[in-house]
Amino acid sequence: MTILQSFTEKHVSKIDGKLSELIQSIEAPAILKEAMNYSLVAGGKRVRPLFLLAILDLLDVEHPEAFTVGSAIELIHTYSLIHDDLPSMDNDDYRRGQLTNHKVYGEALAILAGDGLLTFSFGVLARLDHVPAEQKLELIHLLSRAAGAEGMVGGQVLDIESERKIVTVDELELIHLNKTGALLTFSIEAGAILASADSKTRKALQEFGYHIGLAFQIQDDILDIEGTTETLGKTAGKDVASEKNTYPALLTLAGAKNKKEWHYNQAVKSLRYISSEPVLLDELAAYIVNRSK
Amino acid sequence: MTILQSFTEKHVSKIDGKLSELIQSIEAPAILKEAMNYSLVAGGKRVRPLFLLAILDLLDVEHPEAFTVGSAIELIHTYSLIHDDLPSMDNDDYRRGQLTNHKVYGEALAILAGDGLLTFSFGVLARLDHVPAEQKLELIHLLSRAAGAEGMVGGQVLDIESERKIVTVDELELIHLNKTGALLTFSIEAGAILASADSKTRKALQEFGYHIGLAFQIQDDILDIEGTTETLGKTAGKDVASEKNTYPALLTLAGAKNKKEWHYNQAVKSLRYISSEPVLLDELAAYIVNRSK
Repeated sequence: MTILQSFTEKHVSKIDGKLSELIQSIEAPAILKEAMNYSLVAGGKRVRPLFLLAILDLLDVEHPEAFTVGSAIELIHTYSLIHDDLPSMDNDDYRRGQLTNHKVYGEALAILAGDGLLTFSFGVLARLDHVPAEQKLELIHLLSRAAGAEGMVGGQVLDIESERKIVTVDELELIHLNKTGALLTFSIEAGAILASADSKTRKALQEFGYHIGLAFQIQDDILDIEGTTETLGKTAGKDVASEKNTYPALLTLAGAKNKKEWHYNQAVKSLRYISSEPVLLDELAAYIVNRSK
Repeated sequence: MTILQSFTEKHVSKIDGKLSELIQSIEAPAILKEAMNYSLVAGGKRVRPLFLLAILDLLDVEHPEAFTVGSAIELIHTYSLIHDDLPSMDNDDYRRGQLTNHKVYGEALAILAGDGLLTFSFGVLARLDHVPAEQKLELIHLLSRAAGAEGMVGGQVLDIESERKIVTVDELELIHLNKTGALLTFSIEAGAILASADSKTRKALQEFGYHIGLAFQIQDDILDIEGTTETLGKTAGKDVASEKNTYPALLTLAGAKNKKEWHYNQAVKSLRYISSEPVLLDELAAYIVNRSK
C-alpha cells in the first residue's frame, strides 16, 4: 500500500463523517436536506479536502478544524456539480454512475439544494472553532473569490461562451484556471492558511496549485477520450461528440499528454521549495495525472 | 414630504451607487457582470438596506460601512429573485415591469448570475473596513442562516412543497417566516450588530422584524388581489389563478387585512422598548403595510 493509499483510506471516511454531521445539523425541510445529501454522498473522490489535508501534513501541522474546512470546500464543489448538470447547463443525466440531482428531485429542488450548499459553506467557515477570526475572514474572502464570478462561476460562463467557437490554448487555460483551478488552488491555500505558513511557502504552494490544477483538467479531457462510460460513471466521448474545446482537440492527444506531463513536473518541482521529500503530495500529484476516473 | 420620503430620497441613490461600485469592482466575464447588474438595477425598492439604515438611525449611530452591508443584503435578495423567477420555479417573464433575467440572458446565465451574486455577498462582508472581525463573522454566520436552507432557501422549498395541498395558517406562516421574513429580519439584526446594540435592544428589534416581515408578506398577498399588473410590474392575480396558498385564500381578504393590522401594531409596539418616538421606523412600517407595489 502506498503512502497515499493509507492516507486516503484513513481520511476519506472522516471527511464523509464530517459532511454527514454538518448536513444533519441543519434545521431545514427534510426533502431539501435529502437532496443536498444525495449529491454529497454520491461517491466523490474528495480530492479537494485531501489536498488540504496533504498540505497540512507537508507542513507538519495537525489542525483540529482541517476536516471542517475541507468539508466546507466539498459543499461548494458539490453545489457546482449540481448546477453544472442542470438541463440548461451541461444537461447530464448521470454523475459518478448515479442519476444527477435534478433527475431525482426535479430542477427546482436541485437548484435550491445547490443554493443551500453554497450558502451553508460560508456559515460553516464563520463558525469554525480554534481558528483566529482574521484567518476565518481570509478563508471566507478567498473562497468567495475562488468560487464566485472571479473564479469558478466566471469559468463556467467562459466555458458556455466558448461553446460556439474555437478558442486558443490560452483561452482554454483561462477557462480551466477559473472553472476548476480556482477551487482546487483554494483548497491548497486553505491548508497553508490553517498552518499559518510564511509567504514564501504560500507562493510555492500557489504555483503548485496552478500547475496541478491544469494537469488535473487536461487529464479530465484525456479521460473523455480514453475512459469508458462504465469506469467514469458519466458518458465517455461526450466532449468529442459535442465538439467541445478540449486540450486533445486543440493539441492532439499526444500534445495534451505532453502538456499534462510538463505541468505535473512543474507542480512537483514547486514542492521542492518546501520539502526535499514531499512523498505524500508527490503521490497525490501522480494520482491526479494518472487517474482513470 | 414625510421623514421617510426624505430619508428614502437621500439614501436610495447612495445604495444604488454602492451596488454599482461593488459590481464594477468584480473581475469577471463582461456578460456575467452584465447579467448580475441587470437584475440589481431593475428598480428594486431597496427595502432591506433601508431597514438597516433606519435601525442605525433609530439607534443614533452613523456607520461608515452601513451602505456596504445593506448592499451585500441586496445582492442576496436579487439572487433570490433571479432564481425564483426561473422556469422550473415560479416561471415569471416579468419582474418590476421588466423582462426577468433568464428571459434576457437565458437560463444558464441567469442561474450563474444568481450564484455569482450570492457568493460575492459573503466576500463583501468578509472584507468590510471599520468593522471588528468578530462582528463580520457574526454577520456572515447570521446571513448564511437567514439566506440558506434554514431560512430563505428552506422557505422556498416549503412553498413549492405546499403547492399541491391546502396548508394551515401556521404552516403558511412558517413558509413566509423563512422565505421572506428571515432576510428582512437579518437586515434589521445587521443594523443592531453594526450599532453594537445591547441584548435587550436586539430582542426588541427581532420582535419588530418578526411582525413587520409577516405584515410585509400579507400585504404582498393582498396586492396580488387588489393591485394591477401595471402598478405591480408583475402579473396580478397570479396567486389566485394558480390556487396558491395565501392569507386571503385562508382567511378571506378582510381576515388577511385584520391579521396584517395586528402584526403592524405589534411591530410598532416593539419599537417602543427602544424609543418613545421612532418616527422614521413608524413611517417605514406604515409604508410596508400600505404600499401599492
